[in-house]
Amino acid sequence: MPFANFKVPAGTLGPEQKQQIIDRATDLYAELYGEVARPNTLVIVDEVVDGGWGIGGTVLTAAMLKGAD
Amino acid sequence: MPFANFKVPAGTLGPEQKQQIIDRATDLYAELYGEVARPNTLVIVDEVVDGGWGIGGTVLTAAMLKGAD
Amino acid sequence: MPFANFKVPAGTLGPEQKQQIIDRATDLYAELYGEVARPNTLVIVDEVVDGGWGIGGTVLTAAMLKGAD
Amino acid sequence: MPFANFKVPAGTLGPEQKQQIIDRATDLYAELYGEVARPNTLVIVDEVVDGGWGIGGTVLTAAMLKGAD
Amino acid sequence: MPFANFKVPAGTLGPEQKQQIIDRATDLYAELYGEVARPNTLVIVDEVVDGGWGIGGTVLTAAMLKGAD
Amino acid sequence: MPFANFKVPAGTLGPEQKQQIIDRATDLYAELYGEVARPNTLVIVDEVVDGGWGIGGTVLTAAMLKGAD
Repeated sequence: MPFANFKVPAGTLGPEQKQQIIDRATDLYAELYGEVARPNTLVIVDEVVDGGWGIGGTVLTAAMLKGAD
Repeated sequence: MPFANFKVPAGTLGPEQKQQIIDRATDLYAELYGEVARPNTLVIVDEVVDGGWGIGGTVLTAAMLKGAD
Repeated sequence: MPFANFKVPAGTLGPEQKQQIIDRATDLYAELYGEVARPNTLVIVDEVVDGGWGIGGTVLTAAMLKGAD
Repeated sequence: MPFANFKVPAGTLGPEQKQQIIDRATDLYAELYGEVARPNTLVIVDEVVDGGWGIGGTVLTAAMLKGAD
Repeated sequence: MPFANFKVPAGTLGPEQKQQIIDRATDLYAELYGEVARPNTLVIVDEVVDGGWGIGGTVLTAAMLKGAD
Repeated sequence: MPFANFKVPAGTLGPEQKQQIIDRATDLYAELYGEVARPNTLVIVDEVVDGGWGIGGTVLTAAMLKGAD
């Protein structure tokens, strides 16, 4: 039943990290609403195409993020 | 005026099926709000990049969905 | 598994109309993805607080919509 | 045709400010896509119920925002 | 920088639970992108007005959820 | 703190236009909430894959939009 939508810059997270997001958000909702909520918990990880992410007016690119690692 | 946003796993629906979603949601809103609403009804079908769709903690991929047909 | 988010001006639709939206979107996804998708289909009807809906620069209020019936 | 969704903490903006958001986003899209886009530009200003807005782990309430004026 | 949007039926979570969601999502993003991401992590918990939540065609109300506790 | 999500058909806007959207929305929020809001203002420009954009029941494609320039 519960729903969570994570938005991240494209190309910055791999399958394992997306699975991690899905696991953690699903676990969290099961804690909040009980295990009955788990099977229907829908978690979506959207990717935002490069150039479409602005924080404080600065466009944040995948390259900038990877450079910051 | 009305707005509907459908999210589906990337690569699982073709143009005809997206048109079907757009038609049906537009018709539905025209029924609910009257024909006056039709011309401005905005329907968006977002695609979620593979690996970003979790239901009950399981990551649902396009391959799994196509295998299920 | 599928997800649909309908946004409507607050106070313009009652419970029966929201149920109608939920039924039709659920049926549509079952047609597109098969009956296997039906139990997990999540449909959310969001209400947008009056004053927060602009089309072509004009703020559309519940009163205007009800006046247009 | 274009769509913009602004999310703000509930109770922090009045009708005039929402109209300002709608005007500016509509004008912006008309600049980007031409005046042909103006009549169908949909701008939605969602309000997020108090307690539901977290930045850096801190819950930002309408009271805190108004205190900061 | 990262963004997470949780949608829950209105009236089913209190302030402490919303803070829990905000804390956990912020911590998760700090793990994935590094502590540099923490201060700008935006987490929004939207409430969906009763009657607007359908799973598998069934409208899920706050009363049903509270009855299930 | 403030959040704005712009959705546009894929391939219709370039980096400079996305920067323009980010700048204008960030400036607007700084006007509404004060300069204190600027550093945390998150603006996301989503691209909708071709075929997924319907207005009044008509699917609007990037080719149609470019043809209209």
